Amino acid sequence: MADIPIGDFCSLNPLELFQQVTAQGEKVRSLKAEKAAKGEIDAAVQLLLSLKLSYKTATGEDYKAGSPPMDFAPISNGPGDAEVDDFVDPWTVQTSNAKGVDYDKLIVRFGSSKIDKDLINRIERITGQKPHHFLRRGIFFSHRDMNQILDTYENKKPFYLYTGRGPSSEAMHVGHLIPFIFTKWLQDVFNVPLVIQLTDDEKYLWKDLTIEKAYQYAIENIKDVIACGFDINKTFIFSDLHYLGLSPGFYKNIVKVQKHVTFNQVKGIFGFTDSDCIGKISFPAIQAAPSFSSSFPHIFNNRDDIQCLIPCAIDQDPYFRMTRDVAPRIGYPKPALLHSVFFPALQGAQTKMSASDPNSSIFLTDTPKQIKTKINKHAFSGGKDTIEEHRKYGGNCEVDVSYMYLSFFLEDDEKLEQIKQAYTSGALLTGELKKMLIETLQPLIAAHQQRRKQITDEMVKEFMTPRKLAFDF
Amino acid sequence: MADIPIGDFCSLNPLELFQQVTAQGEKVRSLKAEKAAKGEIDAAVQLLLSLKLSYKTATGEDYKAGSPPMDFAPISNGPGDAEVDDFVDPWTVQTSNAKGVDYDKLIVRFGSSKIDKDLINRIERITGQKPHHFLRRGIFFSHRDMNQILDTYENKKPFYLYTGRGPSSEAMHVGHLIPFIFTKWLQDVFNVPLVIQLTDDEKYLWKDLTIEKAYQYAIENIKDVIACGFDINKTFIFSDLHYLGLSPGFYKNIVKVQKHVTFNQVKGIFGFTDSDCIGKISFPAIQAAPSFSSSFPHIFNNRDDIQCLIPCAIDQDPYFRMTRDVAPRIGYPKPALLHSVFFPALQGAQTKMSASDPNSSIFLTDTPKQIKTKINKHAFSGGKDTIEEHRKYGGNCEVDVSYMYLSFFLEDDEKLEQIKQAYTSGALLTGELKKMLIETLQPLIAAHQQRRKQITDEMVKEFMTPRKLAFDF
Repeated sequence: MADIPIGDFCSLNPLELFQQVTAQGEKVRSLKAEKAAKGEIDAAVQLLLSLKLSYKTATGEDYKAGSPPMDFAPISNGPGDAEVDDFVDPWTVQTSNAKGVDYDKLIVRFGSSKIDKDLINRIERITGQKPHHFLRRGIFFSHRDMNQILDTYENKKPFYLYTGRGPSSEAMHVGHLIPFIFTKWLQDVFNVPLVIQLTDDEKYLWKDLTIEKAYQYAIENIKDVIACGFDINKTFIFSDLHYLGLSPGFYKNIVKVQKHVTFNQVKGIFGFTDSDCIGKISFPAIQAAPSFSSSFPHIFNNRDDIQCLIPCAIDQDPYFRMTRDVAPRIGYPKPALLHSVFFPALQGAQTKMSASDPNSSIFLTDTPKQIKTKINKHAFSGGKDTIEEHRKYGGNCEVDVSYMYLSFFLEDDEKLEQIKQAYTSGALLTGELKKMLIETLQPLIAAHQQRRKQITDEMVKEFMTPRKLAFDF
Repeated sequence: MADIPIGDFCSLNPLELFQQVTAQGEKVRSLKAEKAAKGEIDAAVQLLLSLKLSYKTATGEDYKAGSPPMDFAPISNGPGDAEVDDFVDPWTVQTSNAKGVDYDKLIVRFGSSKIDKDLINRIERITGQKPHHFLRRGIFFSHRDMNQILDTYENKKPFYLYTGRGPSSEAMHVGHLIPFIFTKWLQDVFNVPLVIQLTDDEKYLWKDLTIEKAYQYAIENIKDVIACGFDINKTFIFSDLHYLGLSPGFYKNIVKVQKHVTFNQVKGIFGFTDSDCIGKISFPAIQAAPSFSSSFPHIFNNRDDIQCLIPCAIDQDPYFRMTRDVAPRIGYPKPALLHSVFFPALQGAQTKMSASDPNSSIFLTDTPKQIKTKINKHAFSGGKDTIEEHRKYGGNCEVDVSYMYLSFFLEDDEKLEQIKQAYTSGALLTGELKKMLIETLQPLIAAHQQRRKQITDEMVKEFMTPRKLAFDF
């Protein structure tokens, strides 16, 4: 970095300021490591502090290493709210609003399209199926080019589904099921091939894990994925560490993407810095490549023109914005997307769910008793402090985590609406609402555990074997 | 890039200036692509020219896209010479000295060790073989940890050889044979497994080539490599684009290296900039990984502790300096190295050999007549302008390319010494010297062509098949 005199940062935008702070932080660290002269270190620290101040002035936020400003304009959740900044990228989702991230703002910021009534009606008309409650309730709320996919389907042309998961631990929680539950519904309704990527290489690169551990987590997670009920004749599940060494087609597409994306671009999209390892920097190409049918020559008979539809949580969108930018330049169709909202932590939509905190969510391994205790003890309530007040003023479903979870897992629209009205009016107490959630989740998770128990190593192996699926191309 | 006012570049070092020129060049290109206002483009071009001028002032060289300055301090070839800057990295070798790069200086700069008489004697003693003339004549002149390899060999422990080639075109010239000729000798003498990497992915990333073309060049080059006489039972030859999709072991090692090298590090070692594609940035890990025996589980029976010896031209050393830095951190032995000098262009050691200029070297496809014409017409002569002067003052072998080529390809030490003395004394004329080179190269290349003609597609396929070699591990 060329030295820039103090006080000269006003012309820099927040992202440039972020990069200056990062670079200056590195300089200070290296000066200290080299045991440079005190005067030199002090001057560098002074400049760092000044840069951080400029950053805060420009963005309204403290500088946070590794979390660059996604957008240059601070985002407010609307005139009624206090000024709130949401931050969303594949590694961090932050909001200070108990209702969660403002998704309408996110659609504008990311440049995607809202899944509106018209689109949902079209899906119903074309498939002849009642739209999944994730669609009816706006849990999948945003898309890119879904109408193109529906055109393709109407024209009896093929497309395929691609989704995935980063296996950061053995433990998956109920929120991790959302994309898989929805993907299974899409597969059933459209009857198309599905590929599921486990990014064990990503987890090795980002976490303090060995390669062996990351791969082992992938295998354990695959068992939970299979337990969602995917059809072995229509579904290929792969771990990067395993499949990359089995398919020259996959690697060729990775290199093609890597040739057409610069460090400047991934820096802008993902906030990587010069101190990041080259594995992280080139990883986005590995998540991009399964968007192209030639990455799976065994399924698509070497065809490279079959479009892909990706259901995923919206924090994964940066990968696919990049992919859609590259696709036409390497002669492939752009993937279409369906984006879901985030699954809230038990403690509330503004807190972080963490695999290392067993109380932050309901895990797929929890016993009925654990489920009951966790919900009763930790699920953030939108109810009032006393029964009297609650009866009088009613509860707030918009911030109540038990209600939010029910909106994900209780399929009956009418029943959900009754619950909402009863809770809002104060007729339903928090304890009663929690009981309903407990009674919804206990059998759902028990059934999942039952199905998972029946997954053998042989089944995992077969799902992971590159092979022809029950479709002709 | 923050805008920098014209005339303010004096405080930047050459590398920073190089990055500024590169960034400004991109800005000009994108302004033109966007059809920006003429005034805006003109101003950007003005700034670009001014930056290029500053770069030339600071470095004494014209800015060349993709070739950043390697070192900030100019390197002198010694007090007797005019001040000379050598530049050596995997993509550029530059010297203004007709004798070629100053290799003693390079040893100091790269931190390697000279191959001295003691080491050569030890090789002779241990193997019971006369050292190859490339060793006797200092063509392989530098090493890292070669004594460790000899210890290993004396202790009857295994090691293996790894060398490679970047297949930038179908056409290989005689200089490309140097590492392969020497590697074959090493394999014969030590009787060890050998792996040969064709970096077709690298060529796809760096050149204006399709993936298919890069792979095709790899296959054509492999035929020339096989024609050097390698034993199919002891040698595995692979293209990255092909083998990466066949071996999870290889990819795992690539990711391990990628986790332990930052962008800052590859920027320092290879001069990458923010405008480089992420494929280039992560590529060094792909050249590093074959240094580890677990990249070839079929050969080494999954052992990861077998050391590797890499014979290569010294411009490849940056890759392996990086590899040696990473190796202990991922639990693997550091590769040892043997470095060769560069093979000079016909026009002289300070000019650039280029596959696109057929007259810059003798190609392996040249006819006897082409060899004769090229040498007579283009080989830079160290002789005097007239026969009278030549007889009186003698020729200069140090800059004479025909003599240099003979030192590579004429095995008979005594004969070479006689030629040197006769030429230096003036007894041997340039035309006579050239005739000797022609008569050395014509049969050598004819024999190579003869052997290459017998290489079938089946043989190529077998060399490229991951398999057990004739060694037990």
